[in-house]
Amino acid sequence: MHIHIINPNTTASMTQAIHRAAECQASTGVRITASQPESGPVSIESHFDEVVSAVGVAQEVLKGEREGGIDAYIVACFGDPGLLAARELTRAPVIGIAEAAFHLATLISTRFSIVTTLSRTGIIAEHLLEQYGFRHHCRRIRAAEIPVLDLEHHPDAAFKRIVEECCRARDEDDIGAIVLGCGGMANLTQEISREVGIPVVEGVSAALKLAESLVGLGLYTSKHGDLAYPRPKPFTGQFAALSDLQLPPK
Amino acid sequence: MHIHIINPNTTASMTQAIHRAAECQASTGVRITASQPESGPVSIESHFDEVVSAVGVAQEVLKGEREGGIDAYIVACFGDPGLLAARELTRAPVIGIAEAAFHLATLISTRFSIVTTLSRTGIIAEHLLEQYGFRHHCRRIRAAEIPVLDLEHHPDAAFKRIVEECCRARDEDDIGAIVLGCGGMANLTQEISREVGIPVVEGVSAALKLAESLVGLGLYTSKHGDLAYPRPKPFTGQFAALSDLQLPPK
Amino acid sequence: MHIHIINPNTTASMTQAIHRAAECQASTGVRITASQPESGPVSIESHFDEVVSAVGVAQEVLKGEREGGIDAYIVACFGDPGLLAARELTRAPVIGIAEAAFHLATLISTRFSIVTTLSRTGIIAEHLLEQYGFRHHCRRIRAAEIPVLDLEHHPDAAFKRIVEECCRARDEDDIGAIVLGCGGMANLTQEISREVGIPVVEGVSAALKLAESLVGLGLYTSKHGDLAYPRPKPFTGQFAALSDLQLPPK
Amino acid sequence: MHIHIINPNTTASMTQAIHRAAECQASTGVRITASQPESGPVSIESHFDEVVSAVGVAQEVLKGEREGGIDAYIVACFGDPGLLAARELTRAPVIGIAEAAFHLATLISTRFSIVTTLSRTGIIAEHLLEQYGFRHHCRRIRAAEIPVLDLEHHPDAAFKRIVEECCRARDEDDIGAIVLGCGGMANLTQEISREVGIPVVEGVSAALKLAESLVGLGLYTSKHGDLAYPRPKPFTGQFAALSDLQLPPK
Amino acid sequence: MHIHIINPNTTASMTQAIHRAAECQASTGVRITASQPESGPVSIESHFDEVVSAVGVAQEVLKGEREGGIDAYIVACFGDPGLLAARELTRAPVIGIAEAAFHLATLISTRFSIVTTLSRTGIIAEHLLEQYGFRHHCRRIRAAEIPVLDLEHHPDAAFKRIVEECCRARDEDDIGAIVLGCGGMANLTQEISREVGIPVVEGVSAALKLAESLVGLGLYTSKHGDLAYPRPKPFTGQFAALSDLQLPPK
Amino acid sequence: MHIHIINPNTTASMTQAIHRAAECQASTGVRITASQPESGPVSIESHFDEVVSAVGVAQEVLKGEREGGIDAYIVACFGDPGLLAARELTRAPVIGIAEAAFHLATLISTRFSIVTTLSRTGIIAEHLLEQYGFRHHCRRIRAAEIPVLDLEHHPDAAFKRIVEECCRARDEDDIGAIVLGCGGMANLTQEISREVGIPVVEGVSAALKLAESLVGLGLYTSKHGDLAYPRPKPFTGQFAALSDLQLPPK
Repeated sequence: MHIHIINPNTTASMTQAIHRAAECQASTGVRITASQPESGPVSIESHFDEVVSAVGVAQEVLKGEREGGIDAYIVACFGDPGLLAARELTRAPVIGIAEAAFHLATLISTRFSIVTTLSRTGIIAEHLLEQYGFRHHCRRIRAAEIPVLDLEHHPDAAFKRIVEECCRARDEDDIGAIVLGCGGMANLTQEISREVGIPVVEGVSAALKLAESLVGLGLYTSKHGDLAYPRPKPFTGQFAALSDLQLPPK
Repeated sequence: MHIHIINPNTTASMTQAIHRAAECQASTGVRITASQPESGPVSIESHFDEVVSAVGVAQEVLKGEREGGIDAYIVACFGDPGLLAARELTRAPVIGIAEAAFHLATLISTRFSIVTTLSRTGIIAEHLLEQYGFRHHCRRIRAAEIPVLDLEHHPDAAFKRIVEECCRARDEDDIGAIVLGCGGMANLTQEISREVGIPVVEGVSAALKLAESLVGLGLYTSKHGDLAYPRPKPFTGQFAALSDLQLPPK
Repeated sequence: MHIHIINPNTTASMTQAIHRAAECQASTGVRITASQPESGPVSIESHFDEVVSAVGVAQEVLKGEREGGIDAYIVACFGDPGLLAARELTRAPVIGIAEAAFHLATLISTRFSIVTTLSRTGIIAEHLLEQYGFRHHCRRIRAAEIPVLDLEHHPDAAFKRIVEECCRARDEDDIGAIVLGCGGMANLTQEISREVGIPVVEGVSAALKLAESLVGLGLYTSKHGDLAYPRPKPFTGQFAALSDLQLPPK
Repeated sequence: MHIHIINPNTTASMTQAIHRAAECQASTGVRITASQPESGPVSIESHFDEVVSAVGVAQEVLKGEREGGIDAYIVACFGDPGLLAARELTRAPVIGIAEAAFHLATLISTRFSIVTTLSRTGIIAEHLLEQYGFRHHCRRIRAAEIPVLDLEHHPDAAFKRIVEECCRARDEDDIGAIVLGCGGMANLTQEISREVGIPVVEGVSAALKLAESLVGLGLYTSKHGDLAYPRPKPFTGQFAALSDLQLPPK
Repeated sequence: MHIHIINPNTTASMTQAIHRAAECQASTGVRITASQPESGPVSIESHFDEVVSAVGVAQEVLKGEREGGIDAYIVACFGDPGLLAARELTRAPVIGIAEAAFHLATLISTRFSIVTTLSRTGIIAEHLLEQYGFRHHCRRIRAAEIPVLDLEHHPDAAFKRIVEECCRARDEDDIGAIVLGCGGMANLTQEISREVGIPVVEGVSAALKLAESLVGLGLYTSKHGDLAYPRPKPFTGQFAALSDLQLPPK
Repeated sequence: MHIHIINPNTTASMTQAIHRAAECQASTGVRITASQPESGPVSIESHFDEVVSAVGVAQEVLKGEREGGIDAYIVACFGDPGLLAARELTRAPVIGIAEAAFHLATLISTRFSIVTTLSRTGIIAEHLLEQYGFRHHCRRIRAAEIPVLDLEHHPDAAFKRIVEECCRARDEDDIGAIVLGCGGMANLTQEISREVGIPVVEGVSAALKLAESLVGLGLYTSKHGDLAYPRPKPFTGQFAALSDLQLPPK
């Protein structure tokens, strides 16, 4: 089984960290690869960053489909950018790390809180919770107020802030579990977990397991209805290459 | 990894069929066991059946905890009877097959329909969809109007009726996937899938994979908050044995 | 008119207290009886306790139906355990005390808060609010953090804690009424009410009045659709006696 | 106990029919009176009719409060016109017949349909369902397409149309009970019920019983918070008399 | 284009203030007129006040229709009293100031708070948010606890209180904009805005612009379905004049 | 006042048609300009098309901000692609045509239906309805099953199909108004309206009027909270130019 992780931002070191974290969690016989778009923002902290990164996600899926052999994709940014578009482009399952974390959190607790990076991205999580159906399962969205790349540049300070906020969630929010709201926290999960003492769900590993699950069951992204392959059509300018997607007829 | 499936009804042949279906789907190195309660209804087709079976589910979990070595439990009836009670009794993840099927269905389609046995059980599914957050992801609950045990006694007729209803769902409901609404359909999934031609999600295998996922990640049922171990207390009469659960302090 | 109250826990003294509280409120000509299951937990403070007690509730209804002459049943635990199962077993109305209190509270205020015993049972109330449609009518679920049986063993301290929490609800929650979240508070309602100075709705008396209402109007639990009598079927083991429910054909 | 029914329209014969229907259902010792506003529409079939009738409802409550001795009020039009205003004007419980019917219907079935007079009033019921929390308990709002006063002028034809629509609801809507959507149907309920064969809930009798319930329990409209007595203030023109409500201080 | 503003309360000086505020915002070529009902409360601070004022709103629309030449109406009280009734009476668009403010606020922010006069009117806003669909767009309803007419009689103190509460909303509520919850604040908007430093949406000006928008596009209140002209019928007593509405056939 | 319309697809002839349609509706003194992205799909009929077009939308806003003098932007595709990202990039109001049409439709009717191009795009509208709060205001999403560009290439056949579906919505859906679900229908609105005979709301003109409204009132996209300017950061590859957005500090 071959699962490919797309880090939607273009920071290669973060891709590598996510790759390593995922490999630690992968089941025997599962090959993990990871990439980031050639073009796009170095981190995703706004709707604008997200919109640009979504194109990169789609392009990485198309690249994967052209090369072949990929059984499932993971979109490793907590806003799940481009998720439904990516699903249109392939029969392989595509899993976002926000949805993955939400799904697993509801299986081990009745209510959870999210601890994310910057408060301005809270609205993105809020919209996802609504779309996925988990509005009432999430008690609160908390921000540690650390920019995404500080997870790399100032890991100790970042770790401290995240743990503090997780502890506050544990003590004040009437919850059973915490969802970490950033792909860049993937490699910190176990340590955070140990400090906080209640289940901490991190999206990359959650998505990995859901991807393994779907592939293992032979389940695939439905091509019946609204996730069918996009109708082929001309694209112009710098996106002209998308005119010829070479996707299966149906 | 040891995953134990609890068939909440007391029909041993159905337990075996579910067991076999699960074993076919289990990952390498995962040991599957299955049991049914000693006491309870031979099939579950009403709230009353469900209430009785929920005690059986709890008792099977307690038996599992006493024996030890079980990493996760599956509750293999589409009403998820006793699910939250079971979660209170163990740190091991406990997965219901209805919730499992719903979760996976939302990962490969935007909207799904349920095809269940008897229309009178539709309300049970409806309440679960509401509680889990998937009310708007399910377009319609359809019943093949076959009693649960007919899946064993008249498999061909039952199979035909289910496929008919699945095809109607595919053609009329504006959906991308179908959820099979009965644990007894576990061994028919692949054939149904082939006939219907769109993704068909069955709960036992879905729950198996979610259980493997949580165990694989070291995630456990939260003991912080409302799923903590029950406070020990006297039980009377035929339930007197429950007075001494011998659960960990916290 | 004969209304039978089922105290789902097995503490006879609590049954008696509830019985007395109900008799004080019963209309002229209404006969109140009360019982508790032979088997089950002495108090209900978790999903597990609730699951076991639900069987007791069903069995008490069956006993009532066999004996005959009962016009309505009340399920006197704030989690409404086994409510829909109980409804399946009889044409007589069956009222849960949580739903009853919610219904009446919305008739005399626009928003209410719940004051319950232990915070871990809050999720049970939360799920009921969702299922019944009252999620947005309840501002907050508050716990006095007293175990159910302390209502009997340490009544003064319990009373003080409950009043304190009710006053906090009154002053902080932007509400018009308070719902008491435990059947064991039935005999304290008037005193609490006097202390708090705003309407306090208690479920046993509320359910009694709703039961009287339905019986008075000749309204009965619908046997058309999903609350029809359960299909008869074999039950095994300690539940074998349930195989022959001797319910009417339809 | 004295319960006063306000028929919000000004058709005295309808008031009398409602009065008689209510008296048949009243408990021993309960005195029923009924009135209609001096001014207003002869029937209520639009938002406009409703707005005018709401003033009449408020004035009838004020008249009742001036005269004294009334323990509860019923607003006997299916749109519950002026309900919250009426509640502000008195400590006595005030019950609308739409809300009353919805509440009781949910106690004897899991889902119901409404059969009302004209389809244009469906939106009024829809908004009430949303506000009261019963949106998902009502499967469908059906109209018999008969003007309200035809219930008086062409009772046989009206009865036939209503029964037809009720039977359709019973057979097609996956429900357990029917709510009759017009106060003018109060005297037809039993016959309709007999024809349709499933529980039929009618609002006037439902409201009567809820009123008896609240009075019996000593519960009153909360004067804490948003249903407190209105602040006294000048009213001008034809409403000048409202300037001096002579309500209690709090 | 002629837009007529109805101030639902009977305080002429407030009508004038609203009129002036609207004229400052009107587009070139738009004629603004304003009136208040002949009869009704001098301010609207309860459901009771609202019910009485709704009749006045309807009567002002009828007067406008009789006189002719009005292209749109604005209902200038934050509870939108009589809005749907008013829409039934005319093909001209009718806009409420609460709905208008909510709509515009969602176009410039993702979440907003309301700052209103008295906390007891919060429930009115809450019900409107639910009916209009904006429940989740509004974070919090705050009250400055100043009676409506204090906006006229003690403008400086009122202004100060409102600004204080707006600043609290800005700093504590995780919002992007503030909605002012009273027509009487119309002439203070710009100053408040300047003090608070984030977008402040006021309903009168918002409604004016939405009215201009609909008229400009030739859009009119639908007469197909539930907002069709009311069926003509007798009205009695002081409302007898409403018996002959002289509305178009359809 | 200068309002700039962004046609998110790259078909210049459609931009011109939209431009012309908007100019017909613009108020005196309002200058309308229109553009389409240099790069992107020639029509938008899938999530994939939408994701690519969203980058184009953002880039057109950035171009507008660099050039200066634009008072508001309109995103003229019914999926509102990139709307929140666009709002982050400017203080000027940005209006999507789907949201605009929904908002205005709720002001002239209580319930509406959408008539869109291809059924596969229905899910996009459905998600927007949920996010904006209008889920319950929309009765049904209908598709004429015509590809977007057929609106240009086979206008007569397309027009006929759209009118057919609109008439079906009018007759079957219990609605008061219809929302046209494609920017490409902007120039057909009046003719469709005439054929269908009930209000037909089209998004481009609706957005134009909402944009005029906000600008007229001095309301701007909030820069407080989650729509603040994006934090500046490096972008790589073909998006490198976005590294230096030259946006105001706050």
